[in-house]
Amino acid sequence: MNPSTSALLTDLYELTMAQAYLEEEMDKLAVFEFFVRKLPAHRNFLLAAGLEQVLDYLSELRVTQEELAWLDQSKQFRPRLLHYLETLRFTGDVEAMPEGTTFFPHEPILRIVAPLPQAQLVESRVMNLLSFQTMVASKAARSVLVSGGKPLIDFGLRRAHGAEAGLLAARASYLAGFAGTATVLAGMAYGVPLYGTMAHSFVLAHQDETLAFEHFAKIHPDNAILLIDTYNTEAAADKVVALAQRLHTTGITFKGVRLDSGDLADHARNVRQILDGGGLSEVEILASGNLDEYRLRDLVQTGAPIDSFAVGTAMATSSDAPSLDCAYKLQEYAGRPCRKRSEGKATWPGRKQVYRSYTDSGYLAHDIITTDDDQQSGQPLLQPVMKKGRRLVVSPPLAEVRRQAAAQLGRLPPSLRTLETVPAYDVRISQALQSLAQTVDRSL
Amino acid sequence: MNPSTSALLTDLYELTMAQAYLEEEMDKLAVFEFFVRKLPAHRNFLLAAGLEQVLDYLSELRVTQEELAWLDQSKQFRPRLLHYLETLRFTGDVEAMPEGTTFFPHEPILRIVAPLPQAQLVESRVMNLLSFQTMVASKAARSVLVSGGKPLIDFGLRRAHGAEAGLLAARASYLAGFAGTATVLAGMAYGVPLYGTMAHSFVLAHQDETLAFEHFAKIHPDNAILLIDTYNTEAAADKVVALAQRLHTTGITFKGVRLDSGDLADHARNVRQILDGGGLSEVEILASGNLDEYRLRDLVQTGAPIDSFAVGTAMATSSDAPSLDCAYKLQEYAGRPCRKRSEGKATWPGRKQVYRSYTDSGYLAHDIITTDDDQQSGQPLLQPVMKKGRRLVVSPPLAEVRRQAAAQLGRLPPSLRTLETVPAYDVRISQALQSLAQTVDRSL
Repeated sequence: MNPSTSALLTDLYELTMAQAYLEEEMDKLAVFEFFVRKLPAHRNFLLAAGLEQVLDYLSELRVTQEELAWLDQSKQFRPRLLHYLETLRFTGDVEAMPEGTTFFPHEPILRIVAPLPQAQLVESRVMNLLSFQTMVASKAARSVLVSGGKPLIDFGLRRAHGAEAGLLAARASYLAGFAGTATVLAGMAYGVPLYGTMAHSFVLAHQDETLAFEHFAKIHPDNAILLIDTYNTEAAADKVVALAQRLHTTGITFKGVRLDSGDLADHARNVRQILDGGGLSEVEILASGNLDEYRLRDLVQTGAPIDSFAVGTAMATSSDAPSLDCAYKLQEYAGRPCRKRSEGKATWPGRKQVYRSYTDSGYLAHDIITTDDDQQSGQPLLQPVMKKGRRLVVSPPLAEVRRQAAAQLGRLPPSLRTLETVPAYDVRISQALQSLAQTVDRSL
Repeated sequence: MNPSTSALLTDLYELTMAQAYLEEEMDKLAVFEFFVRKLPAHRNFLLAAGLEQVLDYLSELRVTQEELAWLDQSKQFRPRLLHYLETLRFTGDVEAMPEGTTFFPHEPILRIVAPLPQAQLVESRVMNLLSFQTMVASKAARSVLVSGGKPLIDFGLRRAHGAEAGLLAARASYLAGFAGTATVLAGMAYGVPLYGTMAHSFVLAHQDETLAFEHFAKIHPDNAILLIDTYNTEAAADKVVALAQRLHTTGITFKGVRLDSGDLADHARNVRQILDGGGLSEVEILASGNLDEYRLRDLVQTGAPIDSFAVGTAMATSSDAPSLDCAYKLQEYAGRPCRKRSEGKATWPGRKQVYRSYTDSGYLAHDIITTDDDQQSGQPLLQPVMKKGRRLVVSPPLAEVRRQAAAQLGRLPPSLRTLETVPAYDVRISQALQSLAQTVDRSL
């Protein structure tokens, strides 16, 4: 069983509602849109990610014979639903903002137009995929923006929420500008560059720290990064210098050392001095250990001589905002626009488009959310990506998406790129959309 | 590619270290233990979960031909490692606390004893599996303890961190005492009972709210739970009453109504009155919408007439503490105990056992962490579960684990069962373990 591809990775009510739709022959076109209701605290923007996995999911949507048999024996479902699921394929259209696009609350980043039972069934997984990667990419982008160009590496797998979270956090953080990841499978699956050092266990398994360093470097003669905080950081740096001198004639060089505890800035200064004094000015310092965008900013601003950073738990779990207040809402059924009006959760009805305008210097000026048939000035952000269940374009390589994301982040107004909470970016609701909402409300 | 079962769902350094161990012929027995360094804020205990998936992972550990081919073409690994991975099987021993055991910081809940390269390679995924489910089960248990016996249902899939997180959050929360989940695949994979209602989209897709209720109830004549907050909660409750009277002769009954927005206690009182006044005192009220243990406690304490609760995002992401400060540390290699002494992260060396003592009333009194060969009074919590790569016992059904977890939660001292932060539970380090640590430190 592969949870990542199972059509039963959905909420029970998607099946019970589909069952009711089928019995009532309500299978006309439904329009659902995915959007974020409001920014998490301390966020000034979001970075769209996860579309690629959504398109994979929709393309490959099938209910297996094993799943059908299980549904059947559960006695909870009618034959008509089971028959429908047996030949289920996604046949709808999708429009979306490309991955790596910056966006803001209430702006749809994905629209699905499909027969109602289909569009309903995919709700849970579409939300699951888009919200996680968007959340992680948005958090990772904050780190990228304050790291002064120093490489950041994802070390988050061990505390990510399960297998797919670890894998997709590597993808989303690379997309947002990280240099790479330690997660091997993300290298194989997505071509994300791999980085690694050594663990404390490697040092502990050797009775002697210098011996551990020597063994590791001999096996990895040009790219060893030695972890030097197992016992005493500065003492270990001295050992590195002595070892380098002893290995001088062998051609073995160290790529770097890693600091993982204590005051990282202090240790970095001490270790830099020891390394430089020992003729190892080429040896880089990598820092890790409970880093997030705030600690990164502080370390970079104080000029700590750290060359690269590994960021794990805080990024891969989006620790200060581990979920997005997002929704996948029915906006139109059988040509009739609709919206829910639940307290505090009302939504804008109908098919929508987002137009983005820029300042003369190329920065984002404002966005307008409007109805799909209302033309506004600016750049329309939602583009067709799937038609009748088939992808319209071959997705660009992830490295290209990463370049586009960097360009997008570069066009954010400078105030939005800081870690300060600043006044919200200007997102306008068009007259056409406001009128549509009034019309819909009057029809109730 | 199934990330949940891939041996490459690991950190690059596990492979580079394994490579170095193999070249040095360091393949003697290594002892690693998994433990939590400290409780997250606002937690008084943890509930162990995830062992079952760890044992599955260890039992099925293989590197596929496709993975080997990818590793080979990456040119980052030596032939000796590739050859080793080709026939890799886990052949070690595992001792662990059973799932559903309450535990505290520094207490190992899992020990792996295996040849060093094997025990090292599995680090990332073992941590990933144990930390996530333990974190979720611990959070879910807090909700269970304050819900006054009212059923709780997991609605977290859509905002869980990916596929496996959604699936395992359903498992972990059921283990901790939830009544069930909306996630269909968790029903198929783990036998977790399934619950579901309807979405706003179902109401919106019908031009008329009453018609939506009627259609849904006709297809689900004895278990429909109607969502009544799409437009106006109390008005919808009136419609439910009128509809019930109209359907009176058809045999169709409603199981319940769901509230999902606004002041849930207020709405529940109003709706209860409307339903009771309309002769629907059997119709239950289910509440959902950004619930966590604090809101549950308040709703239960104020006596809001709510019969069951759906808990989603906060539980499935452990939103106030989305990671555990946990570690998987080498405690012994080739018979030599060891420990790291990094600042603020020193660990206790050697193979350990945890003994638990109880008060006369059956509540937990204190735990003692000691060396594996030191006998203490009390109940030893770590038990052998795998020998030479084979499971020793057939795992109990999840429903049985859930009963054991309930018994464990029932033995927590009452102060630890509240949401207040209370003085830490008494966990002692034995003289034997303290002596071992001193001996290890002197040997450095």
